[in-house]
Amino acid sequence: MIQARIPTEPAIAIVGATGAVGEELLALLAERSFPARSVRVFASARSAGKTLRALGRDVTVEPLAPGCFAGTNIAFFSASSAISKEWAPQAVASGAWVIDKSSAFRMDQRYTLAIPEVNGAELDALRAPTIIAVPNCSTIIALMAVSPLHREAGIARMVVSTYQAASGAGAAAMAELAQQAGDWSAGQPLQTPIFGRQYIFNLFSHDSAIGADGQNEEERKLLEETRKIWRDPDVAITATCVRVPVLRAHSESINLTFRTPITEERARAVLAAAPGIELVDDRAANRFPEPINATGRDAVLVGRIRADHSQAAGFGLNLFVSGDQIRKGAALNGLQIAERLLSV
Amino acid sequence: MIQARIPTEPAIAIVGATGAVGEELLALLAERSFPARSVRVFASARSAGKTLRALGRDVTVEPLAPGCFAGTNIAFFSASSAISKEWAPQAVASGAWVIDKSSAFRMDQRYTLAIPEVNGAELDALRAPTIIAVPNCSTIIALMAVSPLHREAGIARMVVSTYQAASGAGAAAMAELAQQAGDWSAGQPLQTPIFGRQYIFNLFSHDSAIGADGQNEEERKLLEETRKIWRDPDVAITATCVRVPVLRAHSESINLTFRTPITEERARAVLAAAPGIELVDDRAANRFPEPINATGRDAVLVGRIRADHSQAAGFGLNLFVSGDQIRKGAALNGLQIAERLLSV
Repeated sequence: MIQARIPTEPAIAIVGATGAVGEELLALLAERSFPARSVRVFASARSAGKTLRALGRDVTVEPLAPGCFAGTNIAFFSASSAISKEWAPQAVASGAWVIDKSSAFRMDQRYTLAIPEVNGAELDALRAPTIIAVPNCSTIIALMAVSPLHREAGIARMVVSTYQAASGAGAAAMAELAQQAGDWSAGQPLQTPIFGRQYIFNLFSHDSAIGADGQNEEERKLLEETRKIWRDPDVAITATCVRVPVLRAHSESINLTFRTPITEERARAVLAAAPGIELVDDRAANRFPEPINATGRDAVLVGRIRADHSQAAGFGLNLFVSGDQIRKGAALNGLQIAERLLSV
Repeated sequence: MIQARIPTEPAIAIVGATGAVGEELLALLAERSFPARSVRVFASARSAGKTLRALGRDVTVEPLAPGCFAGTNIAFFSASSAISKEWAPQAVASGAWVIDKSSAFRMDQRYTLAIPEVNGAELDALRAPTIIAVPNCSTIIALMAVSPLHREAGIARMVVSTYQAASGAGAAAMAELAQQAGDWSAGQPLQTPIFGRQYIFNLFSHDSAIGADGQNEEERKLLEETRKIWRDPDVAITATCVRVPVLRAHSESINLTFRTPITEERARAVLAAAPGIELVDDRAANRFPEPINATGRDAVLVGRIRADHSQAAGFGLNLFVSGDQIRKGAALNGLQIAERLLSV
């Protein structure tokens, strides 16, 4: 008999509970009837003392403090990388499994970077409390769609252009975009505290730091995280990451080059059978993935599946995906990791 | 001595003068001091009798009628393809040079498809009144940026993802988007007469018909028009065309594969010296092409120029462009064709 790694009704903690991802995680706990025995919520000192609703109970926001993870079985981190770097190892030392949404440990070779539908088997092999990193939202949404095709025919190269929502920059960025819609309509000056520029009716290169090679961090993550998750250091990826005036679902235009040929029909069949994605690919009605239709949904929407005739026959494919950035791009993926840990 | 093809002060006509492109053309005539001796304006019977301002004079909108192009030297068409198909040949028969923004004659091998900065020499070779087609907006904006690179190193393949503005679907589509911003902010139901779906805070696959191969018309145009303009039937292009909630400038993420290697530095130097484009490529300040900064500008903005390390060294490059869809994407390109015709 395999001994359970985690009590069937674990004590959980949420660090960053007042942020967009933390709020979504609290909602998902209830929606999915997560069997938590208790929920503790942590946030910055500014939010400490507030009351949040967790699994039908009122809980008080606590500040992080030495020893605060004693008795916690699973700790979800959705705060800054700095917070994760400081506190996640302490949580593990206290005996908690840490599921970390930040970028702090994603590329750390000691830790698994997990999308349960893609590499959940790596989670099954873990035996003792550790850190499990949640990939960047753009990586999750792309890999949900392309991993089944990669398993089928081997992806040699991906060219990705993203259409990323405000939510990736947090709740304040979403509020900024919404506020600008009203102010623009009223002829009022636009407030730009987050992005420093007009966002409504505009788009701009992703607001992350750019390296010497001209790639920004968001683009680099897509390459490096995919190679780690797929355990495939040879896959070639080039990405252009763009912020568009959409509230909370990312879209991505993806062009694929395969190692072995795959027909459009076979690709569609593979995707139709894959977990966590939904085909929205109605050419007659011109209905394809749209971010508002992905919003609030667990599934990543996949469509515009078509052979790419600019490549050798059978070796190229295009597709377009939309996925809820806060949900599958962050909170849901984290919760699915916990569910997978509990299932073994 | 070469005889002028067109009087130095031509009589011009504008068909579709009340549309978004027609209005922009009227503004550009004044802005560029186009040496028209007279301007006649045509539109649908619904608009006939209205007064428009053209080169400082009030002119009355006329309906199209047999013989209406008598005495016209240059006729600009920016109405529907059906109108162009019916009336453009009549204008030519009357002795007018026709500059046609519609798709009616673009792929007709009898006629030149012209971007003056790219293939203006073809215009210089024309001797008698004919139809000259203006390419689709997405083609113009992409080719302004990539044609100089094509001349330098030969482009073998392009992967394009577009971020297209409302204006490509006309003034009513722009109004629909603007109206939705206000209605969304006021908590009112959204009106969707043009696109039949929420547009504010959303994006969707380009609303053109989709062929059996899964490509929509907008994507097919980019391929076919580029091959014609470059006189290069071998260039491979795959595109994904997407409508984003932006008012009037298109952006495009472009991934290039070259026939001969080109360094990032050389590409930047070539683009810096090319006509009609402006480099906006400040990595330190994270300033790159944005549609609101391209709006109202003649130049197509080009940035995010960087080597694509997913391809063999020197053979791959990424870039991002924004260009005013109504201006260089339509009205300005048409007027530049007329200027070029007058210059020889």
